[in-house]
Amino acid sequence: MTEGTVYGIGLGPGDPDLVTLKAARLLGRLPVVAFPANPGGDSLALSIAAPHLNAEAAHLPMVMDFAVDRAMALNAYDAGTTAIVAHLRAGRDVGVLCEGDPLTYGSFAYVLERLPDHVAVEVVPGISAPAACAAVAHRPLALGDEPLLCLPATLPEDRLSALLAAVPAAALFKVGRHLPKVARVLAAVGLAEGTVCVVRASQDGQRLLTLDEALAEGVPYFSMLLARRSP
Amino acid sequence: MTEGTVYGIGLGPGDPDLVTLKAARLLGRLPVVAFPANPGGDSLALSIAAPHLNAEAAHLPMVMDFAVDRAMALNAYDAGTTAIVAHLRAGRDVGVLCEGDPLTYGSFAYVLERLPDHVAVEVVPGISAPAACAAVAHRPLALGDEPLLCLPATLPEDRLSALLAAVPAAALFKVGRHLPKVARVLAAVGLAEGTVCVVRASQDGQRLLTLDEALAEGVPYFSMLLARRSP
Repeated sequence: MTEGTVYGIGLGPGDPDLVTLKAARLLGRLPVVAFPANPGGDSLALSIAAPHLNAEAAHLPMVMDFAVDRAMALNAYDAGTTAIVAHLRAGRDVGVLCEGDPLTYGSFAYVLERLPDHVAVEVVPGISAPAACAAVAHRPLALGDEPLLCLPATLPEDRLSALLAAVPAAALFKVGRHLPKVARVLAAVGLAEGTVCVVRASQDGQRLLTLDEALAEGVPYFSMLLARRSP
Repeated sequence: MTEGTVYGIGLGPGDPDLVTLKAARLLGRLPVVAFPANPGGDSLALSIAAPHLNAEAAHLPMVMDFAVDRAMALNAYDAGTTAIVAHLRAGRDVGVLCEGDPLTYGSFAYVLERLPDHVAVEVVPGISAPAACAAVAHRPLALGDEPLLCLPATLPEDRLSALLAAVPAAALFKVGRHLPKVARVLAAVGLAEGTVCVVRASQDGQRLLTLDEALAEGVPYFSMLLARRSP
Protein backbone atom coordinates (compact mmCIF):
# COMPACT_ATOMS: atom_id res chain seq x y z
CA MET A 1 0.00 0.00 0.00
CA THR A 2 1.20 3.51 -0.79
CA GLU A 3 1.51 5.79 2.23
CA GLY A 4 -0.66 8.89 2.24
CA THR A 5 0.60 12.45 1.82
CA VAL A 6 0.18 15.15 4.44
CA TYR A 7 -0.93 18.54 3.15
CA GLY A 8 -0.34 21.71 5.16
CA ILE A 9 -3.20 23.83 3.89
CA GLY A 10 -3.25 27.61 4.30
CA LEU A 11 -6.82 28.88 4.55
CA GLY A 12 -6.22 32.62 4.66
CA PRO A 13 -7.52 35.16 7.17
CA GLY A 14 -11.12 34.03 7.64
CA ASP A 15 -13.32 34.66 4.59
CA PRO A 16 -13.89 31.24 2.96
CA ASP A 17 -13.73 33.04 -0.41
CA LEU A 18 -10.07 33.85 0.29
CA VAL A 19 -9.18 30.16 0.14
CA THR A 20 -7.18 29.22 -2.97
CA LEU A 21 -8.53 27.02 -5.74
CA LYS A 22 -5.89 24.44 -4.83
CA ALA A 23 -6.89 24.39 -1.17
CA ALA A 24 -10.61 24.19 -1.98
CA ARG A 25 -10.07 21.26 -4.32
CA LEU A 26 -7.99 19.41 -1.71
CA LEU A 27 -10.56 20.05 1.01
CA GLY A 28 -13.22 18.53 -1.23
CA ARG A 29 -11.40 15.23 -1.54
CA LEU A 30 -9.28 14.67 1.58
CA PRO A 31 -10.55 11.83 3.80
CA VAL A 32 -8.96 13.19 7.01
CA VAL A 33 -8.40 16.71 8.34
CA ALA A 34 -6.48 17.77 11.46
CA PHE A 35 -6.80 21.27 12.93
CA PRO A 36 -6.10 23.27 16.08
CA ALA A 37 -9.20 23.81 18.21
CA ASN A 38 -9.60 25.70 21.46
CA PRO A 39 -10.67 23.94 24.67
CA GLY A 40 -14.28 24.99 23.96
CA GLY A 41 -14.09 23.05 20.69
CA ASP A 42 -14.09 26.05 18.37
CA SER A 43 -11.65 26.11 15.47
CA LEU A 44 -11.23 29.12 13.20
CA ALA A 45 -9.36 26.93 10.72
CA LEU A 46 -12.21 24.41 10.58
CA SER A 47 -14.81 27.16 10.21
CA ILE A 48 -12.97 28.63 7.20
CA ALA A 49 -12.58 25.20 5.61
CA ALA A 50 -16.13 24.01 6.37
CA PRO A 51 -17.88 25.25 3.18
CA HIS A 52 -15.31 23.40 1.07
CA LEU A 53 -14.90 20.23 3.12
CA ASN A 54 -15.74 16.68 2.10
CA ALA A 55 -18.70 15.86 4.37
CA GLU A 56 -17.32 12.36 5.02
CA ALA A 57 -13.89 13.59 6.19
CA ALA A 58 -12.68 12.32 9.57
CA HIS A 59 -11.82 15.15 12.00
CA LEU A 60 -8.69 15.20 14.17
CA PRO A 61 -8.97 18.22 16.48
CA MET A 62 -5.75 19.25 18.27
CA VAL A 63 -7.08 20.96 21.39
CA MET A 64 -4.92 23.80 22.70
CA ASP A 65 -4.74 27.37 23.84
CA PHE A 66 -1.19 28.19 22.79
CA ALA A 67 -1.08 31.65 24.33
CA VAL A 68 -2.17 30.30 27.72
CA ASP A 69 -0.69 26.83 28.01
CA ARG A 70 2.32 26.02 25.83
CA ALA A 71 2.81 22.52 27.27
CA MET A 72 -0.81 21.61 26.47
CA ALA A 73 -0.28 22.82 22.91
CA LEU A 74 2.89 20.80 22.41
CA ASN A 75 1.15 17.70 23.78
CA ALA A 76 -1.72 18.29 21.36
CA TYR A 77 0.73 18.49 18.46
CA ASP A 78 2.41 15.27 19.66
CA ALA A 79 -0.88 13.38 19.84
CA GLY A 80 -2.21 14.96 16.63
CA THR A 81 0.90 14.06 14.67
CA THR A 82 0.78 10.48 15.95
CA ALA A 83 -2.81 10.19 14.74
CA ILE A 84 -1.91 11.79 11.40
CA VAL A 85 0.92 9.32 10.85
CA ALA A 86 -1.41 6.39 11.57
CA HIS A 87 -3.77 7.59 8.83
CA LEU A 88 -0.84 8.08 6.40
CA ARG A 89 0.35 4.52 7.09
CA ALA A 90 -3.15 3.27 6.32
CA GLY A 91 -2.85 4.94 2.91
CA ARG A 92 -5.04 7.96 3.63
CA ASP A 93 -4.01 11.53 2.73
CA VAL A 94 -4.39 14.01 5.59
CA GLY A 95 -4.91 17.77 5.45
CA VAL A 96 -3.67 19.96 8.29
CA LEU A 97 -5.91 23.04 8.33
CA CYS A 98 -4.13 26.32 9.09
CA GLU A 99 -5.51 29.83 9.42
CA GLY A 100 -3.51 32.27 7.32
CA ASP A 101 -0.36 30.72 5.88
CA PRO A 102 0.88 27.35 7.22
CA LEU A 103 4.49 28.50 7.68
CA THR A 104 4.12 32.20 8.57
CA TYR A 105 3.87 31.85 12.35
CA GLY A 106 1.64 28.94 11.39
CA SER A 107 0.73 25.84 13.30
CA PHE A 108 1.88 23.54 10.50
CA ALA A 109 5.51 24.06 11.51
CA TYR A 110 4.82 22.20 14.76
CA VAL A 111 3.37 19.22 12.89
CA LEU A 112 6.15 19.30 10.29
CA GLU A 113 8.92 19.04 12.88
CA ARG A 114 7.21 16.01 14.45
CA LEU A 115 6.74 14.01 11.22
CA PRO A 116 9.07 11.11 10.40
CA ASP A 117 11.53 12.01 7.62
CA HIS A 118 10.09 9.66 5.02
CA VAL A 119 6.60 11.19 5.06
CA ALA A 120 5.48 12.86 1.82
CA VAL A 121 4.60 16.50 2.56
CA GLU A 122 3.04 19.19 0.42
CA VAL A 123 2.43 22.74 1.61
CA VAL A 124 -0.28 24.93 0.09
CA PRO A 125 0.47 28.54 0.99
CA GLY A 126 -2.32 30.83 2.20
CA ILE A 127 -2.95 34.54 2.57
CA SER A 128 -1.25 35.81 5.68
CA ALA A 129 -2.61 38.38 8.10
CA PRO A 130 -0.49 41.39 7.02
CA ALA A 131 -1.72 41.11 3.41
CA ALA A 132 -5.32 40.71 4.59
CA CYS A 133 -5.02 43.76 6.85
CA ALA A 134 -3.44 45.91 4.11
CA ALA A 135 -6.38 44.97 1.87
CA VAL A 136 -8.80 46.24 4.52
CA ALA A 137 -6.80 49.42 5.13
CA HIS A 138 -6.20 50.19 1.42
CA ARG A 139 -2.56 50.98 2.05
CA PRO A 140 0.76 49.38 1.10
CA LEU A 141 2.59 47.36 3.74
CA ALA A 142 5.85 48.44 2.07
CA LEU A 143 7.01 49.60 -1.34
CA GLY A 144 10.12 49.54 -3.47
CA ASP A 145 13.26 48.93 -1.43
CA GLU A 146 11.71 49.47 2.01
CA PRO A 147 12.41 46.84 4.65
CA LEU A 148 9.23 45.52 6.29
CA LEU A 149 9.28 44.16 9.81
CA CYS A 150 6.65 41.75 11.13
CA LEU A 151 6.78 41.50 14.87
CA PRO A 152 4.70 40.52 17.87
CA ALA A 153 3.49 43.25 20.19
CA THR A 154 4.34 40.92 23.06
CA LEU A 155 8.07 41.81 22.96
CA PRO A 156 9.55 44.02 25.71
CA GLU A 157 9.35 47.77 25.13
CA ASP A 158 13.11 48.30 24.68
CA ARG A 159 13.34 45.53 22.09
CA LEU A 160 10.33 46.88 20.18
CA SER A 161 11.94 50.35 20.22
CA ALA A 162 15.28 49.15 18.88
CA LEU A 163 13.67 47.13 16.09
CA LEU A 164 11.09 49.70 15.03
CA ALA A 165 13.54 52.62 15.04
CA ALA A 166 15.50 50.86 12.29
CA VAL A 167 12.70 50.32 9.74
CA PRO A 168 10.30 52.39 7.63
CA ALA A 169 7.40 49.92 7.78
CA ALA A 170 6.04 47.36 10.21
CA ALA A 171 3.13 45.02 10.86
CA LEU A 172 2.58 44.29 14.55
CA PHE A 173 0.49 41.32 15.64
CA LYS A 174 -0.85 39.90 18.94
CA VAL A 175 -1.72 43.48 19.89
CA GLY A 176 -4.53 43.18 22.48
CA ARG A 177 -3.46 44.42 25.90
CA HIS A 178 -0.02 45.38 24.54
CA LEU A 179 -1.50 48.31 22.60
CA PRO A 180 -0.59 51.14 25.03
CA LYS A 181 3.04 49.95 25.14
CA VAL A 182 3.25 49.64 21.36
CA ALA A 183 1.63 53.05 20.85
CA ARG A 184 4.29 54.63 23.10
CA VAL A 185 7.05 52.97 21.09
CA LEU A 186 5.54 53.98 17.73
CA ALA A 187 5.31 57.59 18.89
CA ALA A 188 8.87 57.56 20.21
CA VAL A 189 10.33 56.26 16.94
CA GLY A 190 8.22 58.51 14.69
CA LEU A 191 5.95 55.79 13.31
CA ALA A 192 2.66 56.65 15.05
CA GLU A 193 1.37 59.04 12.40
CA GLY A 194 -0.94 57.23 10.03
CA THR A 195 -0.72 53.93 11.90
CA VAL A 196 -3.94 51.97 11.60
CA CYS A 197 -5.35 49.03 13.50
CA VAL A 198 -7.25 46.24 11.73
CA VAL A 199 -9.42 43.97 13.86
CA ARG A 200 -10.55 40.55 12.55
CA ALA A 201 -9.59 41.15 8.90
CA SER A 202 -12.07 39.50 6.51
CA GLN A 203 -14.07 37.99 9.43
CA ASP A 204 -17.37 38.96 11.05
CA GLY A 205 -16.71 42.03 13.15
CA GLN A 206 -13.93 43.34 10.87
CA ARG A 207 -12.96 46.90 11.82
CA LEU A 208 -10.47 49.52 10.65
CA LEU A 209 -9.43 51.95 13.40
CA THR A 210 -7.00 54.82 13.79
CA LEU A 211 -4.39 54.32 16.49
CA ASP A 212 -6.25 56.82 18.71
CA GLU A 213 -9.56 55.02 18.22
CA ALA A 214 -7.90 51.70 19.05
CA LEU A 215 -6.36 53.15 22.21
CA ALA A 216 -9.70 54.64 23.30
CA GLU A 217 -11.70 51.44 23.00
CA GLY A 218 -9.11 48.67 23.35
CA VAL A 219 -8.69 45.86 20.83
CA PRO A 220 -8.66 42.05 20.93
CA TYR A 221 -5.53 39.88 20.83
CA PHE A 222 -6.02 39.11 17.13
CA SER A 223 -5.61 42.69 15.96
CA MET A 224 -2.83 44.03 13.78
CA LEU A 225 -1.20 47.46 13.60
CA LEU A 226 0.18 48.65 10.27
CA ALA A 227 2.78 51.40 10.56
CA ARG A 228 4.73 53.13 7.79
CA ARG A 229 6.77 56.32 7.66
CA SER A 230 5.52 58.94 5.21
CA PRO A 231 7.67 58.33 2.11
CA MET B 1 -25.24 55.72 -14.13
CA THR B 2 -23.38 54.13 -11.26
CA GLU B 3 -19.60 54.41 -11.44
CA GLY B 4 -17.65 51.20 -11.62
CA THR B 5 -15.49 49.77 -8.83
CA VAL B 6 -11.78 49.17 -9.18
CA TYR B 7 -10.53 45.85 -7.77
CA GLY B 8 -6.89 45.35 -6.84
CA ILE B 9 -6.58 41.61 -7.35
CA GLY B 10 -3.77 39.57 -5.83
CA LEU B 11 -2.95 36.56 -7.99
CA GLY B 12 -0.31 34.84 -5.87
CA PRO B 13 3.16 33.68 -6.88
CA GLY B 14 2.52 32.14 -10.30
CA ASP B 15 0.54 28.89 -10.13
CA PRO B 16 -3.00 29.72 -11.36
CA ASP B 17 -4.28 27.22 -8.76
CA LEU B 18 -2.98 29.53 -6.01
CA VAL B 19 -5.51 32.19 -7.00
CA THR B 20 -8.30 32.64 -4.44
CA LEU B 21 -11.92 31.71 -5.12
CA LYS B 22 -12.80 35.40 -4.80
CA ALA B 23 -10.20 36.46 -7.36
CA ALA B 24 -11.16 33.69 -9.80
CA ARG B 25 -14.83 34.68 -9.63
CA LEU B 26 -14.00 38.37 -10.22
CA LEU B 27 -11.73 37.53 -13.15
CA GLY B 28 -14.57 35.58 -14.73
CA ARG B 29 -16.90 38.57 -14.77
CA LEU B 30 -14.84 41.77 -14.98
CA PRO B 31 -15.19 43.57 -18.32
CA VAL B 32 -11.80 45.36 -18.08
CA VAL B 33 -8.42 44.32 -16.66
CA ALA B 34 -5.28 46.43 -16.29
CA PHE B 35 -1.86 44.90 -15.61
CA PRO B 36 1.86 45.66 -15.70
CA ALA B 37 3.61 44.27 -18.78
CA ASN B 38 7.24 44.42 -19.79
CA PRO B 39 8.36 46.21 -22.96
CA GLY B 40 8.30 42.86 -24.78
CA GLY B 41 4.59 42.59 -23.98
CA ASP B 42 4.90 39.78 -21.42
CA SER B 43 2.96 40.00 -18.18
CA LEU B 44 3.31 37.49 -15.37
CA ALA B 45 0.13 38.88 -13.77
CA LEU B 46 -1.85 38.35 -17.00
CA SER B 47 -0.45 34.84 -17.47
CA ILE B 48 -1.56 33.83 -13.95
CA ALA B 49 -5.01 35.33 -14.48
CA ALA B 50 -5.49 33.99 -18.03
CA PRO B 51 -7.12 30.62 -17.21
CA HIS B 52 -9.75 32.44 -15.13
CA LEU B 53 -10.34 35.50 -17.28
CA ASN B 54 -13.52 36.50 -19.07
CA ALA B 55 -12.58 36.06 -22.75
CA GLU B 56 -14.36 39.31 -23.65
CA ALA B 57 -12.44 41.44 -21.14
CA ALA B 58 -10.73 44.56 -22.49
CA HIS B 59 -6.99 44.63 -21.70
CA LEU B 60 -5.14 47.71 -20.43
CA PRO B 61 -1.41 46.86 -20.34
CA MET B 62 0.80 49.24 -18.38
CA VAL B 63 4.16 48.83 -20.07
CA MET B 64 7.17 49.22 -17.80
CA ASP B 65 10.45 47.83 -16.56
CA PHE B 66 10.45 49.25 -13.04
CA ALA B 67 13.91 48.04 -12.10
CA VAL B 68 15.44 49.66 -15.19
CA ASP B 69 13.41 52.82 -15.85
CA ARG B 70 11.47 54.28 -12.96
CA ALA B 71 10.20 57.29 -14.92
CA MET B 72 8.76 55.02 -17.63
CA ALA B 73 6.98 53.00 -14.93
CA LEU B 74 5.46 56.06 -13.27
CA ASN B 75 4.28 57.33 -16.68
CA ALA B 76 2.70 53.93 -17.34
CA TYR B 77 0.86 54.11 -14.01
CA ASP B 78 -0.32 57.66 -14.85
CA ALA B 79 -1.67 56.63 -18.25
CA GLY B 80 -3.06 53.34 -16.95
CA THR B 81 -4.91 55.02 -14.11
CA THR B 82 -6.39 57.61 -16.48
CA ALA B 83 -7.70 54.81 -18.69
CA ILE B 84 -9.03 52.92 -15.64
CA VAL B 85 -10.91 56.00 -14.43
CA ALA B 86 -12.50 56.47 -17.87
CA HIS B 87 -13.87 52.92 -17.71
CA LEU B 88 -15.12 53.46 -14.15
CA ARG B 89 -16.95 56.65 -15.25
CA ALA B 90 -18.58 54.65 -18.05
CA GLY B 91 -19.96 52.30 -15.39
CA ARG B 92 -17.53 49.44 -15.94
CA ASP B 93 -15.75 47.63 -13.11
CA VAL B 94 -12.00 47.29 -13.63
CA GLY B 95 -9.60 44.70 -12.20
CA VAL B 96 -5.96 45.58 -11.64
CA LEU B 97 -4.01 42.32 -11.88
CA CYS B 98 -1.14 41.96 -9.42
CA GLU B 99 1.38 39.17 -8.97
CA GLY B 100 1.60 38.13 -5.33
CA ASP B 101 -0.30 40.45 -3.00
CA PRO B 102 -1.49 43.84 -4.31
CA LEU B 103 -0.14 45.81 -1.34
CA THR B 104 2.98 43.85 -0.33
CA TYR B 105 5.52 45.64 -2.52
CA GLY B 106 2.71 45.39 -5.05
CA SER B 107 1.98 47.47 -8.10
CA PHE B 108 -1.55 48.26 -6.95
CA ALA B 109 -0.22 50.86 -4.52
CA TYR B 110 0.88 52.98 -7.48
CA VAL B 111 -2.59 52.87 -9.02
CA LEU B 112 -4.27 53.46 -5.66
CA GLU B 113 -2.36 56.69 -4.99
CA ARG B 114 -3.34 58.02 -8.43
CA LEU B 115 -7.10 57.34 -8.13
CA PRO B 116 -9.50 60.20 -7.35
CA ASP B 117 -10.79 60.07 -3.77
CA HIS B 118 -14.39 59.24 -4.67
CA VAL B 119 -13.57 56.04 -6.56
CA ALA B 120 -14.89 52.81 -5.02
CA VAL B 121 -11.97 50.45 -4.33
CA GLU B 122 -11.85 46.85 -3.20
CA VAL B 123 -8.64 44.95 -2.59
CA VAL B 124 -8.46 41.15 -2.83
CA PRO B 125 -5.32 39.98 -1.03
CA GLY B 126 -3.08 37.36 -2.61
CA ILE B 127 -0.36 34.96 -1.54
CA SER B 128 2.90 36.82 -1.22
CA ALA B 129 6.33 35.54 -2.20
CA PRO B 130 7.68 34.72 1.29
CA ALA B 131 4.75 32.38 2.01
CA ALA B 132 5.11 30.75 -1.41
CA CYS B 133 8.85 30.23 -0.87
CA ALA B 134 8.37 28.79 2.62
CA ALA B 135 5.89 26.30 1.12
CA VAL B 136 8.54 25.18 -1.37
CA ALA B 137 11.25 24.96 1.29
CA HIS B 138 9.07 23.18 3.91
CA ARG B 139 10.31 25.48 6.66
CA PRO B 140 8.74 28.17 8.81
CA LEU B 141 9.45 31.81 7.96
CA ALA B 142 9.15 32.59 11.66
CA LEU B 143 7.49 31.11 14.73
CA GLY B 144 6.10 32.25 18.05
CA ASP B 145 7.39 35.65 19.08
CA GLU B 146 10.20 35.90 16.52
CA PRO B 147 10.44 39.12 14.52
CA LEU B 148 10.54 38.50 10.76
CA LEU B 149 12.25 40.96 8.44
CA CYS B 150 11.43 41.21 4.74
CA LEU B 151 14.05 43.19 2.89
CA PRO B 152 15.47 43.73 -0.56
CA ALA B 153 18.93 42.43 -1.33
CA THR B 154 19.53 45.70 -3.18
CA LEU B 155 20.29 47.62 0.04
CA PRO B 156 23.91 48.62 0.82
CA GLU B 157 25.97 46.05 2.71
CA ASP B 158 26.25 48.06 5.94
CA ARG B 159 22.49 48.61 6.08
CA LEU B 160 21.80 44.92 5.43
CA SER B 161 24.26 44.02 8.21
CA ALA B 162 22.68 46.33 10.75
CA LEU B 163 19.16 45.12 9.98
CA LEU B 164 19.94 41.39 9.80
CA ALA B 165 22.06 41.37 12.96
CA ALA B 166 18.98 42.41 14.93
CA VAL B 167 16.55 39.67 13.86
CA PRO B 168 16.21 35.88 14.09
CA ALA B 169 14.48 35.42 10.72
CA ALA B 170 14.46 37.13 7.33
CA ALA B 171 13.19 36.82 3.78
CA LEU B 172 15.38 38.60 1.23
CA PHE B 173 14.06 39.41 -2.23
CA LYS B 174 15.46 40.88 -5.49
CA VAL B 175 18.51 38.68 -4.93
CA GLY B 176 20.04 38.16 -8.41
CA ARG B 177 23.48 39.76 -8.70
CA HIS B 178 23.33 40.87 -5.05
CA LEU B 179 23.75 37.29 -3.84
CA PRO B 180 27.52 37.39 -3.02
CA LYS B 181 27.05 40.57 -0.96
CA VAL B 182 24.06 39.12 0.90
CA ALA B 183 25.86 35.83 1.54
CA ARG B 184 28.77 37.75 3.14
CA VAL B 185 26.35 39.61 5.39
CA LEU B 186 24.43 36.47 6.38
CA ALA B 187 27.70 34.76 7.32
CA ALA B 188 28.89 37.79 9.30
CA VAL B 189 25.69 38.00 11.36
CA GLY B 190 25.41 34.24 11.93
CA LEU B 191 22.41 33.64 9.68
CA ALA B 192 24.06 31.73 6.80
CA GLU B 193 23.63 28.26 8.24
CA GLY B 194 20.50 26.66 6.87
CA THR B 195 19.68 29.59 4.58
CA VAL B 196 17.93 28.41 1.42
CA CYS B 197 17.27 30.05 -1.92
CA VAL B 198 13.97 29.58 -3.74
CA VAL B 199 13.89 30.42 -7.43
CA ARG B 200 10.54 31.04 -9.22
CA ALA B 201 8.32 29.63 -6.47
CA SER B 202 5.27 27.82 -7.90
CA GLN B 203 6.29 28.68 -11.50
CA ASP B 204 7.92 26.67 -14.28
CA GLY B 205 11.58 26.32 -13.38
CA GLN B 206 10.96 26.37 -9.62
CA ARG B 207 14.11 25.41 -7.69
CA LEU B 208 15.16 25.01 -4.07
CA LEU B 209 18.90 25.57 -3.50
CA THR B 210 21.26 25.74 -0.56
CA LEU B 211 23.10 29.04 -0.19
CA ASP B 212 26.30 27.38 -1.49
CA GLU B 213 24.50 25.98 -4.54
CA ALA B 214 23.01 29.38 -5.27
CA LEU B 215 26.41 31.05 -4.98
CA ALA B 216 27.98 28.47 -7.27
CA GLU B 217 25.48 28.83 -10.10
CA GLY B 218 24.08 32.33 -9.66
CA VAL B 219 20.35 33.06 -9.42
CA PRO B 220 17.87 35.34 -11.22
CA TYR B 221 16.53 38.64 -9.88
CA PHE B 222 13.27 37.05 -8.78
CA SER B 223 14.81 34.69 -6.24
CA MET B 224 14.29 34.75 -2.51
CA LEU B 225 16.55 33.79 0.38
CA LEU B 226 14.99 32.47 3.59
CA ALA B 227 17.21 32.76 6.64
CA ARG B 228 16.46 31.80 10.24
CA ARG B 229 18.64 31.25 13.28
CA SER B 230 18.49 27.78 14.77
CA PRO B 231 15.95 28.13 17.58
